[in-house]
Amino acid sequence: MITSFHPPARTLMGPGPSDVSPRVLAAMARPTIGHLDPAFIEMMDQIKQMLKTLFNTNNELTIPVSAPGSAGMEACFVNLVEPGDKVIVCQNGVFGGRMKENVQRFGGEAIMVQDAWGTPVDPEKVRAAFQAHPDAKILAFVHAETSTGVRSDAQQLCAIAKEFGALTIVDAVTSLGGIEVDVDGWGIDAIYSGTQKCLSCPPGISPVSFSAQAVARVKARTTAVPSWFLDKNLVMGYWGGSGKRAYHHTAPINSLYALHEALVMVNEEGIENVWARHEKHHAALRAGLEAMGITFLVDEASRLPQLNSVRIPDGVDDAAVRTALLQNYNLEIGAGLGDLAGKVWRIGLMGAACNQRNVMLCLDALENTLQGMNAPINLGMAAQAALATYR
Amino acid sequence: MITSFHPPARTLMGPGPSDVSPRVLAAMARPTIGHLDPAFIEMMDQIKQMLKTLFNTNNELTIPVSAPGSAGMEACFVNLVEPGDKVIVCQNGVFGGRMKENVQRFGGEAIMVQDAWGTPVDPEKVRAAFQAHPDAKILAFVHAETSTGVRSDAQQLCAIAKEFGALTIVDAVTSLGGIEVDVDGWGIDAIYSGTQKCLSCPPGISPVSFSAQAVARVKARTTAVPSWFLDKNLVMGYWGGSGKRAYHHTAPINSLYALHEALVMVNEEGIENVWARHEKHHAALRAGLEAMGITFLVDEASRLPQLNSVRIPDGVDDAAVRTALLQNYNLEIGAGLGDLAGKVWRIGLMGAACNQRNVMLCLDALENTLQGMNAPINLGMAAQAALATYR
Repeated sequence: MITSFHPPARTLMGPGPSDVSPRVLAAMARPTIGHLDPAFIEMMDQIKQMLKTLFNTNNELTIPVSAPGSAGMEACFVNLVEPGDKVIVCQNGVFGGRMKENVQRFGGEAIMVQDAWGTPVDPEKVRAAFQAHPDAKILAFVHAETSTGVRSDAQQLCAIAKEFGALTIVDAVTSLGGIEVDVDGWGIDAIYSGTQKCLSCPPGISPVSFSAQAVARVKARTTAVPSWFLDKNLVMGYWGGSGKRAYHHTAPINSLYALHEALVMVNEEGIENVWARHEKHHAALRAGLEAMGITFLVDEASRLPQLNSVRIPDGVDDAAVRTALLQNYNLEIGAGLGDLAGKVWRIGLMGAACNQRNVMLCLDALENTLQGMNAPINLGMAAQAALATYR
Repeated sequence: MITSFHPPARTLMGPGPSDVSPRVLAAMARPTIGHLDPAFIEMMDQIKQMLKTLFNTNNELTIPVSAPGSAGMEACFVNLVEPGDKVIVCQNGVFGGRMKENVQRFGGEAIMVQDAWGTPVDPEKVRAAFQAHPDAKILAFVHAETSTGVRSDAQQLCAIAKEFGALTIVDAVTSLGGIEVDVDGWGIDAIYSGTQKCLSCPPGISPVSFSAQAVARVKARTTAVPSWFLDKNLVMGYWGGSGKRAYHHTAPINSLYALHEALVMVNEEGIENVWARHEKHHAALRAGLEAMGITFLVDEASRLPQLNSVRIPDGVDDAAVRTALLQNYNLEIGAGLGDLAGKVWRIGLMGAACNQRNVMLCLDALENTLQGMNAPINLGMAAQAALATYR
């Protein structure tokens, strides 16, 4: 007979999910109520309002999709891409490739702009792609590449798209709540994120926002959106405007309690303070890692504070280290993906996991583990280097 | 400043979500771990095993989709319907209509078999539809219509589809865990359910199962599945078989803790006992309602024990009653949908909500509320009639 599951108490410093605050876990366990309950409708309105603040947008269509970030991505592409549409897709990691898949599955033509993994999207290549394909209707790129820890310049990329009259679809799964995201200021037309990164909720919900222009594009479609679940026209009947709510699907009530609480916590701390906290602990982690002799994959200018991709020291067995961290320290860090598998670790400092305790734990655990494997690192310097940044 | 949300403690006797057991809520609040954590992978295997038992199937592709029941429906149709495919869709309520939408959005042709709302699907009409369209590739129907409280004869309908060499897609959102569902015995090829009905979890997850024939159909597609998130070929890389798990999307960790606990509870009680419990409390509720003079929409032979659609007494203001129940008793019952709006209430007895306390509360609250509105009902007889069934 299978019995109740009691998970180990990990420290989550991978690429997400990140540590969830006890406040958010407690919110998630509150009694379930109906998805059309007046109390729930009021909470939905508060979530919308807080998401607008977080995305820095007045977009009316700013809602949490009832499924993980991958479904948020799909919600953007399935609504905005029509068969035959040209979409310029920037790929500098795993998730640009997933965008390409999305475009193609919905009958669009993906014009690829390739950059090396670990580098940001090159705006000049994007401009050249628009010059070669001035009829491209959409530019799609990843703001913060979860597979590499790179930040691309969303503001500049959106400006280029606007020059050519194209809409923009932006992946902010790992950026939202960790670094600045300015939907209205940068002119983003469709954006999606996830709850399990810098918002420190359990995974399962994807906040999205569509600009008025994006909504107009959806309404002007000549073909039906090839999804019922993600059709924004229908979802808006439940989440949209004021007045009567039409039943669309049953919202994931308790997961939305969690998101609500996480957003309240961001508001309490203040979003600028949240960003500053990510910078501060990133600086400490970086000082410690560099003192150990571990180097970063990404140039400093494009480095995400919340996701640190570092090179695995020569001769070190990737999986053995991660297994030891998990077994001896209950600490999860992330493996590399794709071409970077076995070459890098991805160390997350996201949301509630972005704190001094975790920085110190990670440095000590990594140093002890690497020392035990006779890895070529400097010993006894990491902790002091990190602590020095906090003074 | 928006503050933490504290929901009222409702009793959920609508069409779902239903009351969630404190054990399941507690499970949901356990610490989040990674979606590739060895401990989580082990829990996933246990969920698969328990879902197979619950569906009564050996289907390898038996997994929880990471989104609500509507996405489970879409997962079945988007994988199995190719452009031009004829699909016979039975409609005897809201959800048959949603199936039609799904077929059409994925380029299929929906051959509709219509039955009156409140009656089951007529097998002879289904046979006639196959005779008129012997090239139909799929039969799709709703086992337990959530909008009306009707049970259709899934075994008989599947047998007809097999005669004509068609696959079957079955909506078991409201049936699974409330009445018998026998995937292998009845020859169901694709089935989806929801966690928020008779499994008494918070909404957000949709258990599905695909037969070997259905999987073969997906693999033999000549067009790409027009969804990345729901593509079963990809999802199987994460959930399927043994050995290495490929990352597909980030699973909703804590929602799966909840599902795991709910399935453990079903196993502890025993599925036959669970069905019997639904029958028992349905009988009590029915005795009480009938003693009050309230009548059922659905014939006894096709009535679902877990969802009781009853006619609103003449002259009674539907919304006023439901509002009074919510305000005075924290009790939620369901409104009618579509043509039945304002004509029926839908009283759920699902999962953890299916207990004597709820039956008695509902009868008393309804009687008191209707009495206060001078509704034409019999007073003072409902409780005794219900209690008599328990003796």
